[in-house]
Amino acid sequence: MTELPRQRPSTPLLDQIDQPAAVRQLPASDLPLLADQLRRYLLWSVSQSGGHFGAGLGVIELTIALHHVLNLPHDQLIWDVGHQAYPHKVLSGRRDALVQIRQAEGPAPFPSRDESPYDAFGVGHSSTSISAGLGMAIAFGRQTVRPEEIPPRVVCVIGDGAFTAGMAFEAINHAAQTGVDLTVILNDNDMSISPNVGSLATYLDSSHAGELFTALGFSYHGPLDGHDLTHLPQQLDNIIHQPGLHLIHVLTRKGKGFTPAEADPVGFHAIAKLEPASTTDAKGPKYSRIFSDWICTMAAQDQRLLAITPAMREGSDLIAFSQQFPERYFDVGIAEQHAVTLAAGMACASAKPVVAIYSTFLQRAYDQLIHDVAIQNLDVLFAIDRAGLVGEDGPTHAGVYDISFLRCIPNMLLLCPSDEAETRAALTTAYHYPGPAAVRYPRGHGPGNLPDHSLPQLPLGKARTLYHGQRIAVLAFGPILHDIKEAALELNCSLADMRFVKPLDAELLERWMQTHEQIVTIEEHAIAGGAGSAVAEHLLNKGYMGRITHLGIEDRYIPHGSAEQQRQWCSLDRISLKRRLEALLAISE
Amino acid sequence: MTELPRQRPSTPLLDQIDQPAAVRQLPASDLPLLADQLRRYLLWSVSQSGGHFGAGLGVIELTIALHHVLNLPHDQLIWDVGHQAYPHKVLSGRRDALVQIRQAEGPAPFPSRDESPYDAFGVGHSSTSISAGLGMAIAFGRQTVRPEEIPPRVVCVIGDGAFTAGMAFEAINHAAQTGVDLTVILNDNDMSISPNVGSLATYLDSSHAGELFTALGFSYHGPLDGHDLTHLPQQLDNIIHQPGLHLIHVLTRKGKGFTPAEADPVGFHAIAKLEPASTTDAKGPKYSRIFSDWICTMAAQDQRLLAITPAMREGSDLIAFSQQFPERYFDVGIAEQHAVTLAAGMACASAKPVVAIYSTFLQRAYDQLIHDVAIQNLDVLFAIDRAGLVGEDGPTHAGVYDISFLRCIPNMLLLCPSDEAETRAALTTAYHYPGPAAVRYPRGHGPGNLPDHSLPQLPLGKARTLYHGQRIAVLAFGPILHDIKEAALELNCSLADMRFVKPLDAELLERWMQTHEQIVTIEEHAIAGGAGSAVAEHLLNKGYMGRITHLGIEDRYIPHGSAEQQRQWCSLDRISLKRRLEALLAISE
Repeated sequence: MTELPRQRPSTPLLDQIDQPAAVRQLPASDLPLLADQLRRYLLWSVSQSGGHFGAGLGVIELTIALHHVLNLPHDQLIWDVGHQAYPHKVLSGRRDALVQIRQAEGPAPFPSRDESPYDAFGVGHSSTSISAGLGMAIAFGRQTVRPEEIPPRVVCVIGDGAFTAGMAFEAINHAAQTGVDLTVILNDNDMSISPNVGSLATYLDSSHAGELFTALGFSYHGPLDGHDLTHLPQQLDNIIHQPGLHLIHVLTRKGKGFTPAEADPVGFHAIAKLEPASTTDAKGPKYSRIFSDWICTMAAQDQRLLAITPAMREGSDLIAFSQQFPERYFDVGIAEQHAVTLAAGMACASAKPVVAIYSTFLQRAYDQLIHDVAIQNLDVLFAIDRAGLVGEDGPTHAGVYDISFLRCIPNMLLLCPSDEAETRAALTTAYHYPGPAAVRYPRGHGPGNLPDHSLPQLPLGKARTLYHGQRIAVLAFGPILHDIKEAALELNCSLADMRFVKPLDAELLERWMQTHEQIVTIEEHAIAGGAGSAVAEHLLNKGYMGRITHLGIEDRYIPHGSAEQQRQWCSLDRISLKRRLEALLAISE
Repeated sequence: MTELPRQRPSTPLLDQIDQPAAVRQLPASDLPLLADQLRRYLLWSVSQSGGHFGAGLGVIELTIALHHVLNLPHDQLIWDVGHQAYPHKVLSGRRDALVQIRQAEGPAPFPSRDESPYDAFGVGHSSTSISAGLGMAIAFGRQTVRPEEIPPRVVCVIGDGAFTAGMAFEAINHAAQTGVDLTVILNDNDMSISPNVGSLATYLDSSHAGELFTALGFSYHGPLDGHDLTHLPQQLDNIIHQPGLHLIHVLTRKGKGFTPAEADPVGFHAIAKLEPASTTDAKGPKYSRIFSDWICTMAAQDQRLLAITPAMREGSDLIAFSQQFPERYFDVGIAEQHAVTLAAGMACASAKPVVAIYSTFLQRAYDQLIHDVAIQNLDVLFAIDRAGLVGEDGPTHAGVYDISFLRCIPNMLLLCPSDEAETRAALTTAYHYPGPAAVRYPRGHGPGNLPDHSLPQLPLGKARTLYHGQRIAVLAFGPILHDIKEAALELNCSLADMRFVKPLDAELLERWMQTHEQIVTIEEHAIAGGAGSAVAEHLLNKGYMGRITHLGIEDRYIPHGSAEQQRQWCSLDRISLKRRLEALLAISE
């Protein structure tokens, strides 16, 4: 196919499939027809909803084959990362719901144990499936079963991209000694989100692919054609039901069946909703583009700058940099730990590395940030994208803990700019700071205050005062400043764009604590240990005994939905914020 | 040798070596004599100081060979983990200082960039060396050098135990595409701290060892005899100075040259000071033994309990458990990420996994704790050892951030028991809690309040009041309770053992905020985002406007020294704490 269908296609066979048992009962000869209908349904459905695209198209036959040979949900089918789980969702009772995927109340963007008993393990981050599968296989293996019971088979489907992360290797290394039955399906499409990285990818393409896995205790099978439904079900069935550890190497094509996606698997990793051209944006550059422009300018001025990404060239927008400075660009694969310690090594040799990473993925490199960068006080800049609520990707991708886990680390500088121009200035400031520094900025678009081409610096640890008001001083961290701005002005509150979480603007805090009845902090981040908490620590240490209120995210996971919906659920939208300020003013009257 | 020398041995050749250049200039024929003297010196010195023992003895010849062929500190020599760096310290200007290793003002327990220009990269945690070395090699490779300059060679020495961690694999996978010159010396002694784990270890012992590395872009050399100083220097010299990526497989014996350590490499991984037998303890069991006893009792009662350790059987004291319940014991190797997601998988299959892990190493599995355990609200217990200041192991091993990075995660239960009996009760309570739970307890001995054999539970989220006093309410988190107890009593303060960081005892907090002039929190943890900060968030949210003071660790790294010294440096010792309470009482008078 070359065009996305505008009308729901007719899929009479698919329409009969309301649970995996139905696929299991289909005659094998019907499976190709089901694949065809599922593919056409998926093309239509994702064009309606937007979302992950290429990975699902690539595993349609594999998904059908697995649903045909496994006894779900008794058997456990674990999808690594979960980008590729849309066909699985369609076949397991979520066909009609799929058009609402990623929307509030619609299916989650990834497998979710809360959503379906057919989703054996919740995911979103990569490379967890083998560890989780081993844990299940160990536990099932220990549970007494009656002789007539068949113990659950555990099958993990993991892409060759996800195989570059160390934790997948840790699990493979541990597997043999556990003595369990487990099947790992290596879905080899030569891609992660970006083109694949590393020597292992080359190795997997070689005729030696089997030797490594055999040496590590797995029986190796393949490579199999992952789109050949005539043979695949029987091949899988034969292997999966044998005892022991199996590695099935399946070759697939990302975007299979949709010509434009096969030709451009990076561009079609995920797509936006199909909408009339007239409404598509003009909102200006996203934050990731602000970073992209900044790093290209800075790199042109400073030969020492090197950029590192863990397989997120597109997401973090290092596309232009990778083209303009290919020899200073390092995509290390899905390997956040290595990314950060690589940067530490570079900094030891007088380079100035910039690690571009999502807030949620920085969690993977937390020890490396502490142990390799911060304790040694090395000059590494972390450009933390997707900070705050991320909308449709849901709780696995929310970047709402980084302030808590970073501000407790000595030597760190931590900035949270409030708009695009501020982000450029924050990056410049943090870059010039001769130690570990982090700048957190959100997904998507800002308020539209675009920077020019200069590289201004901010005074270290100084806030920017917007309004001098009375009674309540509002201290805003990050772009949520703009959601409370109008209310602060209307209600005659003082308002500061704090710019820095660490160090805080102590002078401003101590002045305002004397000239206001109340302090209100606001951030798009967990309240627990967040920026507001840092303000309270400082003020309390100075003997402040007035009222302090923290506005932020309460202690719960925020479901997927639009970022605006998520802010409403957290009472962090403009209307709620105004109401909350009014309520605080009422208290002190 | 079979006994540790009581007198400093005569080492005339070693005494002339004040820096690596001196080793470089020695005739090769003198190197075996130097090795002999270095070994005898090390046996004496470590018997005086205590510290890491077997690993250093195993690399004496390797260290001498490297110092002989490298041009240090121009060349970069990176010791992975750093347990094995004592001989390197002796040869690089720290010979006489070594008897004070791990003591305040003495050399650090691991390589440290602050301590010596010969320590190319600071370590303590394992498996970072290849990433760091690659970073250095990339940065050096880009720096313009005059034609007559020889670019620095970068050499990483990593044990086969450290190779099981995923980040080592991530670095190996990335190396080839960087095009740099780098030598990795695989110091293969068949051990991590405990006996080695995993299929890779078996594979390395096989004749196929070279194939994997060759496939991943390294030239493979070996296995070489790591104790053969007649050949080793020339062999290393030939390889290291060739361009490209090299993997040199060197076979060594942990504890080499000291018979008892060769026979028991686990027992002699580290040793205590050699002291007259009469003074050695009788302090009763350490906290790790309390955990050991608890998990054996609980496992006997509950078949579902499974225990996981990332290569820390001895440190976390799972020795008895591993003997009594071998089929329920899982040492996954140095693989913290896998350890935690393995537990998540087990919990999905109705087992009750207990992950025994040091606070500082939990940093390695932070994302897995959030993404795989907490978001899915799975029933996993984290038994967090070495929480708080850890004394001689210094800042890389300090467990002083876990409250900050855990309490912001929804669904977590977090306890910090104050003594041995409380620890047993806390573990029982957290075990029965049907979700993610963590119990943090410190290194070493407690105050001596030993538990009996029962398994009592604590009421969830309830503190224990010790004293009802006046004016100041002291809220203590963890064993530091005992350091402020006397002062609180003498000064007529109220005192509570809070037991829970999450959930806090809201009822007590709200009652005491009304009946006291001041709230004082105390914890052996970073103040930033710690337990005190959680108290403040709660009280401020309830409108409290009194004085709150947080006692804890300020925003800096605490150097190595005894734990008691470290507490003094933080003003968290008994005398300082009393003085601080007195000062607070004076304020409110």
